[in-house]
Amino acid sequence: MRVHVKARLDYDFPERVESLLQIEAAVADDQAVLDERLTFDPPVAVTRRDDPATGERRVVFTCQGRLAIAYDAVVEIAARDMALADAAQHAIAALPIDTLPYLRGSRYCPSDTFETIADQKFGGLRGGARVAAIVDWIIGHLEYRPCSDARTTALETYVERAGVCRDFAHLAVTLCRASDIPARVASVYAPALQPPDFHAVAEVFVGGRWRLLDPTGRAPVDGLVRIAYGRDAADVAFLTIFGKATMMAQSVMVTAI
Amino acid sequence: MRVHVKARLDYDFPERVESLLQIEAAVADDQAVLDERLTFDPPVAVTRRDDPATGERRVVFTCQGRLAIAYDAVVEIAARDMALADAAQHAIAALPIDTLPYLRGSRYCPSDTFETIADQKFGGLRGGARVAAIVDWIIGHLEYRPCSDARTTALETYVERAGVCRDFAHLAVTLCRASDIPARVASVYAPALQPPDFHAVAEVFVGGRWRLLDPTGRAPVDGLVRIAYGRDAADVAFLTIFGKATMMAQSVMVTAI
Amino acid sequence: MRVHVKARLDYDFPERVESLLQIEAAVADDQAVLDERLTFDPPVAVTRRDDPATGERRVVFTCQGRLAIAYDAVVEIAARDMALADAAQHAIAALPIDTLPYLRGSRYCPSDTFETIADQKFGGLRGGARVAAIVDWIIGHLEYRPCSDARTTALETYVERAGVCRDFAHLAVTLCRASDIPARVASVYAPALQPPDFHAVAEVFVGGRWRLLDPTGRAPVDGLVRIAYGRDAADVAFLTIFGKATMMAQSVMVTAI
Amino acid sequence: MRVHVKARLDYDFPERVESLLQIEAAVADDQAVLDERLTFDPPVAVTRRDDPATGERRVVFTCQGRLAIAYDAVVEIAARDMALADAAQHAIAALPIDTLPYLRGSRYCPSDTFETIADQKFGGLRGGARVAAIVDWIIGHLEYRPCSDARTTALETYVERAGVCRDFAHLAVTLCRASDIPARVASVYAPALQPPDFHAVAEVFVGGRWRLLDPTGRAPVDGLVRIAYGRDAADVAFLTIFGKATMMAQSVMVTAI
Repeated sequence: MRVHVKARLDYDFPERVESLLQIEAAVADDQAVLDERLTFDPPVAVTRRDDPATGERRVVFTCQGRLAIAYDAVVEIAARDMALADAAQHAIAALPIDTLPYLRGSRYCPSDTFETIADQKFGGLRGGARVAAIVDWIIGHLEYRPCSDARTTALETYVERAGVCRDFAHLAVTLCRASDIPARVASVYAPALQPPDFHAVAEVFVGGRWRLLDPTGRAPVDGLVRIAYGRDAADVAFLTIFGKATMMAQSVMVTAI
Repeated sequence: MRVHVKARLDYDFPERVESLLQIEAAVADDQAVLDERLTFDPPVAVTRRDDPATGERRVVFTCQGRLAIAYDAVVEIAARDMALADAAQHAIAALPIDTLPYLRGSRYCPSDTFETIADQKFGGLRGGARVAAIVDWIIGHLEYRPCSDARTTALETYVERAGVCRDFAHLAVTLCRASDIPARVASVYAPALQPPDFHAVAEVFVGGRWRLLDPTGRAPVDGLVRIAYGRDAADVAFLTIFGKATMMAQSVMVTAI
Repeated sequence: MRVHVKARLDYDFPERVESLLQIEAAVADDQAVLDERLTFDPPVAVTRRDDPATGERRVVFTCQGRLAIAYDAVVEIAARDMALADAAQHAIAALPIDTLPYLRGSRYCPSDTFETIADQKFGGLRGGARVAAIVDWIIGHLEYRPCSDARTTALETYVERAGVCRDFAHLAVTLCRASDIPARVASVYAPALQPPDFHAVAEVFVGGRWRLLDPTGRAPVDGLVRIAYGRDAADVAFLTIFGKATMMAQSVMVTAI
Repeated sequence: MRVHVKARLDYDFPERVESLLQIEAAVADDQAVLDERLTFDPPVAVTRRDDPATGERRVVFTCQGRLAIAYDAVVEIAARDMALADAAQHAIAALPIDTLPYLRGSRYCPSDTFETIADQKFGGLRGGARVAAIVDWIIGHLEYRPCSDARTTALETYVERAGVCRDFAHLAVTLCRASDIPARVASVYAPALQPPDFHAVAEVFVGGRWRLLDPTGRAPVDGLVRIAYGRDAADVAFLTIFGKATMMAQSVMVTAI
């Protein structure tokens, strides 16, 4: 599938500060960037901070005053098999070393506190079947409602039973880790999402590879354009400002061509 | 400095479960393992999960019943210059890519909530001088007292003004990250610590390299034997049990030879 | 001082639910309601739930659909001496029985966790002088900014160093209780507040009586019209809806005549 | 039923501080104190702080050094009908004014965050039937295990699925309040409890009166000797020390005669 991405950010920086921008499509086996352009108006000097190990692309820039950022890209997404049903759970001893950190608790995913709940609710299941049951439970019990903020963890989301995409992703990740299944958060562009916006989904390691899933049930994983992944939303913020700034406007358009 | 490490763990596993053990001295530029032995009584099959990227060494084993683990090592520690005074703070754009995750909030270090406090308390300082002031503040305001548990974050430690080594390390790491200084937690063996135990310290990236520091002020950093490092205690647990177990006994002896 | 109060609430109740309204000026020694009118459009049946013990006045009503509530009152406020400087702190044994609950932690005021901080920051002071120092500290360190929500406790406010009137009041109450000084939250109409709104302040028991204070420093306590008081904002909500409703509009005008 | 209570507290007070002691059987319609003795060794001056409104009895004393407190009482407990099955839920408008505070969130019972959960789990039930379902759910899902501390709220207990009597009581109270049913915590002596200790239970207002219930299922409510009640454990601590002290020993014996 070919996807056209258009992202626009308009910020006001009252003081001269550095920012880290992470909105470019990642380099990955299952997606190829055919064409892209990242522009700043007015122009700013940028330092690239791409990570060859993960395929993530990032720039750091310094700015004071008003700044408009535009990113346009055409990305080819390979067919992906994200089926969970038959994906086996790995023994810890059989997990690749680089998946191990995704078993640990993180800023928004205190998975260590959820072990008994994971057991009580999903105790009879393992691997992909367990992940699928977790996603079903989340879709059945959480309301999509903008009641959370930048401090909200999966613990509050679990109790309040509501949140936005990142909260759904955090809870899915938390329950998977509490089930000894490596899980992480990915920031993506999602063609079918309404209204269009930056989107956060979960990724779990079962059956020998990472599999994307959207615990909000709002975006099919097929056309997702991956930007970055990490332990949770703390790692994949699209803009990290090392100081103060005000968002003036922001828009995202994602179209399957 | 040459350091002799002796660690003994005695656990009871009521059911057959996997565990991840992380108590071996790491491979690093500034420390060399001259001699070591890791033994299990009764013997268990172990799968090594060493991470060549970080030098950390880990084994995964499966066990049911009583298990005694013994680790003995002699480690040569190079002279280390951990001086903070003149170490400059890096611009974000100048930080190595692999230090960037250590600017983010983590399970026990919600640094995103501490930005105003870091500013109010340490606003005039940067780099090593700021780190030194953070450590001084912690030593001056926190009491070393076992009042915390496995859920305690730096937020509670900051308000309660008490904790154990991991809590001191978490608060130091949190305030450094909130100051835009990469910071992480290291698990170590500390020769001078009284009473001897597994110990947790902080590591900050200023002046071009990582520098160890002990915000409890209880252990000189010179003879520290590094085991593992990570975003916080969630990453460097010496034993992670994927199921239930009971600690029957545990002891650590660390001697500078 | 004579104060004219005008409050307008406009809500939409999608289902038939009960609500508890607490916006009428309280009956108290230091304020007299000269004239008032509480109206509902469309009219609803109300059950009065006035509390003769506290002077608080409340109504419970049941409603479905759109409802406009209007409260108009003219209140005479007696001259109040809220001076803190010479007000002595009472021994616990000398406190009136009905002040004792205001020494305890509450929903938004976990004062039990703040004892060491209260000691470290205000250890040399007692009574009114200590309260005054607490208020000064709050005014000096907190920014008035709408970053909090209905779940925010004094612990988060203390760390984030920002909030709105209820957060300032919660932190003042918390630090006073942690200093063994009875403290509670009062909901009030404040003539000088800009922009006009429902307002929350603190009340402390020193020197033999309750003394109002505004830890935001935004409203002189002289003309405050007391509505209700309680352990914290949980007790003095102006509208408690036992179900769902949407606020369509809300306005408050308070004028010293 | 006639119950014999014996409580012994042995504390060391390093500095001269005040304490509030609340271990005497309350005066209530359904229990009569036939004989009792409260002694302090060495003797201390006490100020009685009994509350005639609630029947609770309390003393404040000042002490430095070692202090042994002994309370012995014989209490006659009337037959109590605590049956929940047919007890109707009251409309808010029909609740007695003094029950209204027990609908609000408190220190350990953040009931405002549990409304959706209460709805999802117990939505079809009201009144005593709903309370009974809440107690059943708690008994079925929580493990009695000393994993909590003086900071633990019902939110953590709900997620961790474990705790001691006060945690069970807090969760029951929280879920009842989130169901618009007034609920409070009572401290009691419980004849059948093993091992004997101070005990905390819940009390709910349905069917026209307060009804005791023990959400741990460990103590029949029949012989419970009521000491105090309040919004949660913050209000009913058996000993509140306004400063520091160390518990040296403590024992409780409660025997049905």
